[in-house]
Amino acid sequence: MTYTPPAPAVVDDIISQTKFDANGLISAIAQDTKGVILMLAWMNADALRETLLTGRVCYWSRSRKSLWRKGETSGQQQHLLEARLDCDMDAVLMIVDQTGVACHTGRRSCFYHGVTPDGLRDTSQPEISAEELYGR
Amino acid sequence: MTYTPPAPAVVDDIISQTKFDANGLISAIAQDTKGVILMLAWMNADALRETLLTGRVCYWSRSRKSLWRKGETSGQQQHLLEARLDCDMDAVLMIVDQTGVACHTGRRSCFYHGVTPDGLRDTSQPEISAEELYGR
Repeated sequence: MTYTPPAPAVVDDIISQTKFDANGLISAIAQDTKGVILMLAWMNADALRETLLTGRVCYWSRSRKSLWRKGETSGQQQHLLEARLDCDMDAVLMIVDQTGVACHTGRRSCFYHGVTPDGLRDTSQPEISAEELYGR
Repeated sequence: MTYTPPAPAVVDDIISQTKFDANGLISAIAQDTKGVILMLAWMNADALRETLLTGRVCYWSRSRKSLWRKGETSGQQQHLLEARLDCDMDAVLMIVDQTGVACHTGRRSCFYHGVTPDGLRDTSQPEISAEELYGR
């Protein structure tokens, strides 16, 4: 699986068909090649354009209100292998080659608060410390 | 993989920790046991509570502004096998046993608008017609 970026005019056409919400955002899901859901985050038109043009995943950070080039600080980049929008064009699924871990807690996946009869229990442990991720 | 619903008090505790957005919603991803992402939709607290208590997936329909018991009209139900919230508690990933197809277009997955160098191209075809899904 390799991703070939479309020409800028083709990307613009895709973005013109995308249904961004009232805040100008769509949901973006990152999944690895083994089927593991790594994370869910957000993209505005600029983030989606950069992602599709470069093949390097770029989100929109709602807290920082800025483009979030995944891995820029932590080194844990996501390289696009495949992108598919959903039926109503307001969410994108990306199959990615994830360098290291996706979660800021050092876990491979952000989805680790498992629902059990006894409440939430961690389903995975950090593979790398926050110091190693962000202390550089 | 079988899902055992927690007691109502445990579910209430989980919901009290969940970070619903300004509209009272979280994102909900449904994935089948083979790793295929079926759909992304939304849940309010009532939908999440019903889903966790019954094991039958219930979303919140933003367009109809009502609980959306998946499969109620189409018969294409989702039975919960596993649920995990993400690191910041504002999204839920559900592994589900999907009856038939998840998408209203009759496709197994809603994510079928594939990004190609030539623009968007369908990556899958309907397995069942809209008449069969909704014409009953």
